[in-house]
Amino acid sequence: MSQSESLKGVQALLFDVFGTVVDWRESVSEQLRTRTEGSISEDWVEFADEWRKGYYKGVRRVAQGGEGPTNIDVMHREILDEMLDSPRWKHLASRWNDDERQELVLMWHRLHGWPDATEGLYALKKKVIIGALSNGNIRLLVDMAKYTELPWDVVYSGELLGSYKPNPKVYLGAMQHLSLAPSSCAMVAAHIYDLQAAAACGMKTVYVRRLSEDPLEVRDQVKSKANGGEVDAVVDSFIELATLLSK
Amino acid sequence: MSQSESLKGVQALLFDVFGTVVDWRESVSEQLRTRTEGSISEDWVEFADEWRKGYYKGVRRVAQGGEGPTNIDVMHREILDEMLDSPRWKHLASRWNDDERQELVLMWHRLHGWPDATEGLYALKKKVIIGALSNGNIRLLVDMAKYTELPWDVVYSGELLGSYKPNPKVYLGAMQHLSLAPSSCAMVAAHIYDLQAAAACGMKTVYVRRLSEDPLEVRDQVKSKANGGEVDAVVDSFIELATLLSK
Repeated sequence: MSQSESLKGVQALLFDVFGTVVDWRESVSEQLRTRTEGSISEDWVEFADEWRKGYYKGVRRVAQGGEGPTNIDVMHREILDEMLDSPRWKHLASRWNDDERQELVLMWHRLHGWPDATEGLYALKKKVIIGALSNGNIRLLVDMAKYTELPWDVVYSGELLGSYKPNPKVYLGAMQHLSLAPSSCAMVAAHIYDLQAAAACGMKTVYVRRLSEDPLEVRDQVKSKANGGEVDAVVDSFIELATLLSK
Repeated sequence: MSQSESLKGVQALLFDVFGTVVDWRESVSEQLRTRTEGSISEDWVEFADEWRKGYYKGVRRVAQGGEGPTNIDVMHREILDEMLDSPRWKHLASRWNDDERQELVLMWHRLHGWPDATEGLYALKKKVIIGALSNGNIRLLVDMAKYTELPWDVVYSGELLGSYKPNPKVYLGAMQHLSLAPSSCAMVAAHIYDLQAAAACGMKTVYVRRLSEDPLEVRDQVKSKANGGEVDAVVDSFIELATLLSK
């Protein structure tokens, strides 16, 4: 069965956002560079990466039923404060007061889409329902959609659905509110763990290869069912995905 | 204070949908007429009105903590079945089997916007966040937005937020997920009861005069605070509302 046949009957695509739709690493490190230009010289990509790692850890903990904030702005702030307490970044702590740290958190609301994102989403929107299904909070996702033009039909956040991905509650809640059976929905993500959790809920799966996300060895390993792998489709862009979907 | 000053600081507009954004009466009665053309002649406006009244009754009951479906498709079906059991419409009951009744329920997903709706929402979207805040379920609202082009930034349903308007939970939940204080949000509706509930939560309020909604004596009575009334603004269209908001 071809990738296109494998996706037959899909009426809605639910998208992971950070890394899959937007390039958080370049966007956050570039904003840090611009903000500090002429005064601090740091490895801002390393800074963004560490911030992102803290987010993964926090989200995973809450998704598994542990303690932690359900709002990503709050989580991003907690991680930032911890980082600025750590030996690696302590020298920066005095540069940013409370208000400035809140402003830094809002950098995560202004992330650029990958070059194919906006055009691809418009093409997909003509064929199916397109929704964000992110652990980011609604305000963050709405700000981002306005900032980088993401024409969502619906925006779902983990907070709204009562947990974080990969908790099944999030995928199942999103589909329930769309009145769709899992086999009519596909999860689109650049992270295999997200797609594995979606598949466990009965959803179809589309893997998008994005440079900043899963490491190369994982990206190369993920294969479509047509090629003996586990996902329904592997694509390099949303525009490619649009060509796989029949109207 | 003018209407425009009264709305100063508003960062998000939350819209009631049925009657405020879309003309349900004309859309539903017209679809019924088209479906039955040549075979049944009925007063389809009366039929649509009675269906709508059943919806109000059901929603109000659930909003006050009573029993009832949280999904509007389910509620619309229950009301339809009751109507087709009543003396007034019993003669139609045998014409529509289970599948056809499900199709009739889906007419409520295909409602036309009022003439100013799409253009007005695009104008407003450039200035603030625009969201649907409806008792309709998410799938219904998404289908409708695609059908009649409503460029929502975010779509909230009562079901998603755990009750129906006018329960405060719905208004407060919508604002919480936007990380906004009530004074930065305005509710836009063609029903004064909806605006009174929003105001009780601290929101600003915009009354839209729509022919099919509140009766004429109510529409004429509603006044802006500038004119000694209770709402922040009274408008006849979303385009007029856009002129009141500063960027």
